[in-house]
Amino acid sequence: MLFSEIDYLDSNLDVLHGFVGVRDGRIDYVGANDPTHSNPALDYGERYNGAGKLLIPGLYNTHAHAPMVLLRGYAENLPLQQWLYEAVFPFEDRIRAAQAYPAMLVAIAEMLRFGVVSFSDMYFFTEERARAVAESGIKANLCNGLMVFDPDVRYEDMPDKESNERFVRSYHNTLDERLKIDLNIHSEYISNPQVVQAVGQQALELGVNTHIHLSETAREHEECKQRRGGLTPAAYFESLGFFKQPCVAAHCVHTEPEDWQILARNGVTVSANPASNMKLASGFAPVPQMLAAGINVTLGTDGVASNNSHNILKDLYLFALLYKGATGDPTVVTAKEALAAATINGARAQGRLDSGSIAVGNRADVAVLDISGPWFSPQTDLLNNLVYAGQGSDVVLTMVDGAVLYRDGIYPTIDVKRAIFETQQATQAILASL
Amino acid sequence: MLFSEIDYLDSNLDVLHGFVGVRDGRIDYVGANDPTHSNPALDYGERYNGAGKLLIPGLYNTHAHAPMVLLRGYAENLPLQQWLYEAVFPFEDRIRAAQAYPAMLVAIAEMLRFGVVSFSDMYFFTEERARAVAESGIKANLCNGLMVFDPDVRYEDMPDKESNERFVRSYHNTLDERLKIDLNIHSEYISNPQVVQAVGQQALELGVNTHIHLSETAREHEECKQRRGGLTPAAYFESLGFFKQPCVAAHCVHTEPEDWQILARNGVTVSANPASNMKLASGFAPVPQMLAAGINVTLGTDGVASNNSHNILKDLYLFALLYKGATGDPTVVTAKEALAAATINGARAQGRLDSGSIAVGNRADVAVLDISGPWFSPQTDLLNNLVYAGQGSDVVLTMVDGAVLYRDGIYPTIDVKRAIFETQQATQAILASL
Repeated sequence: MLFSEIDYLDSNLDVLHGFVGVRDGRIDYVGANDPTHSNPALDYGERYNGAGKLLIPGLYNTHAHAPMVLLRGYAENLPLQQWLYEAVFPFEDRIRAAQAYPAMLVAIAEMLRFGVVSFSDMYFFTEERARAVAESGIKANLCNGLMVFDPDVRYEDMPDKESNERFVRSYHNTLDERLKIDLNIHSEYISNPQVVQAVGQQALELGVNTHIHLSETAREHEECKQRRGGLTPAAYFESLGFFKQPCVAAHCVHTEPEDWQILARNGVTVSANPASNMKLASGFAPVPQMLAAGINVTLGTDGVASNNSHNILKDLYLFALLYKGATGDPTVVTAKEALAAATINGARAQGRLDSGSIAVGNRADVAVLDISGPWFSPQTDLLNNLVYAGQGSDVVLTMVDGAVLYRDGIYPTIDVKRAIFETQQATQAILASL
Repeated sequence: MLFSEIDYLDSNLDVLHGFVGVRDGRIDYVGANDPTHSNPALDYGERYNGAGKLLIPGLYNTHAHAPMVLLRGYAENLPLQQWLYEAVFPFEDRIRAAQAYPAMLVAIAEMLRFGVVSFSDMYFFTEERARAVAESGIKANLCNGLMVFDPDVRYEDMPDKESNERFVRSYHNTLDERLKIDLNIHSEYISNPQVVQAVGQQALELGVNTHIHLSETAREHEECKQRRGGLTPAAYFESLGFFKQPCVAAHCVHTEPEDWQILARNGVTVSANPASNMKLASGFAPVPQMLAAGINVTLGTDGVASNNSHNILKDLYLFALLYKGATGDPTVVTAKEALAAATINGARAQGRLDSGSIAVGNRADVAVLDISGPWFSPQTDLLNNLVYAGQGSDVVLTMVDGAVLYRDGIYPTIDVKRAIFETQQATQAILASL
């Protein structure tokens, strides 16, 4: 495909106008002039008319629990502990693999609808999730949830050790690297030191990344310090050698200045989840401070039970908005910083170094937005319009590795109606059994 | 029109399924059964197929500066004083009436696109704004900005006294009450006591409402107390008898508990502007506390220079989200409270007592959303889905007084392409002159 006469964001996220060529899954031309003029033999197939459109790097959602689509709209406005222990956990206990699969497809359809090309997903049912990723064409870093409630259990005595290894051998870097497997520790408070150490060692041996929750709530952060001899969650993981492989740490709402040094020097990525942190009243992550500390800050939706959608352009807006309010400083987090978090930083976090920006040689992971609507008028600064006035449904095309996975209401790879129907049936069956 | 087999929100904002009939600009039937079955002579014209749709009361935007569309995307991420005095005011000084008119149409097109049926607008160029309201078919309460920098000037010596009276005589309750005129005081800090008193008296004599900014920033609130012998802005306005007519007070971010009593006992409506308050880092309004105090709390977008759109479903989401984060209590502001703020409370604030809910006899001011997308799946609680997962572009139809003003991409009353073109030209001309 040759995107023609289109506004696009270059690798510095500056707005330019011209042509972007896609062949064999990669971007092979970016420039002001039509590449077929100088080389008429070049065959791009379709010419995409860029009038009234904006081409952007595809968006990365670095923290999700996609099958939690099943819980959308359920048990709202409850205190955190009651929500978790009386509503969410009992519901999740009843989810079967056959129900997680259509919910995964609904989540992927949502993400593709809103320009997401890749996501990092922490949940169970990894075979079913991998199947949905394979079929849909989206990219994902999946990790299988690891929750340790017994302070004495050893990783070698848990079935997870072998299943994690099997997941990595079966799926990691398959589908032309579309699918990756990360290893998981749920969090400091649902772990023990031996398991943290052993999983870190396994990640090192298998050469895969890790994905954890970190300092999401004040309670978690403070109780860790009491439990672990003064160590914060970040210091706890570092002390156990867990950060030798690249890690995505979700939330980091209650991290302290010393934590930012730990995260920065270990190259740990932070996945900020502004919607979830507001909805569950967890607090405001110190995003401006973490950006200043040189941390790779990225954007996540979290599960829809605390969001309630995978509409990442809404989260992008929150990311650019909330920390101004929280710090009292309207100059923090520019539109460009926000968009970098949602694109190139996300690609880096997932170990996808040939993606995340519109540049020759990169994977053709991009999205097109319709910018002809009144909410994009006037157009004096498209980046500001995109981040502060854009919305998910402005996306009209999402492309992964050069393949169109969403366009103008059509999902070529997903039977969305069926997935919605089966998800509805699954949720109703689970609710009836509670 | 007969909305058939449709999910709709009744006057309690509970979700029901059935039929809603619209004739002669009003809702004349709401119920589970098709009204034409018992009375085949009833002629509703079109039957609207409600499959996959949700019918809601039209939304009210109670604080806007619509022609500020001209500034969209301009001068972002600046400190408040620099933004106002070096960017916004110099730009606004150059806006001419002929430029405000297309910008007003763009703003109205945005609002109709996102389900807004009526808005309260504080700006200049009242003739041009009234013309755009008249032509577009939307409802509005317009007030003409009144800014008083001279502490000694008297209202009777200002041209505003006569022009305000003229606006009221010319426009108030015209167009079958679609258009109303409110009187304005910009704020305590751009007023003097004599003018506040005189405008309050004029509103009483003319029988119109008022619209002001109140305690938007901490600086404004604290400086008022120093300037006015300890009176807060709310106490200042009350002491001058300003609240005898219904008033919309925008922002109220830094109001104190005694202010809530003042607002409640005077029946003053608060227009919460969550997006603007975050973007400009003004703070979090005490919305849960004001709701608890029995104040009529409503929802506003503010101008796009601090939003950056009139996408009210985004503001509705922020309204339901932010105060959870700000208070640390995830139980505050339910989906129903948020939707009431954006509908019936807004209608009440504007003196539109026969609108704001789907009930027989009310004006047919409604919106239809497409709820068939994956982000509405599963559907176990449509109200939660709407508020927490819905987005502006889910709106597929907006109706005011029974007339369809937006439907499936078509604006029957507005030449949107022309308005966008003229707005673009206007902004470029103003920027070039700066």
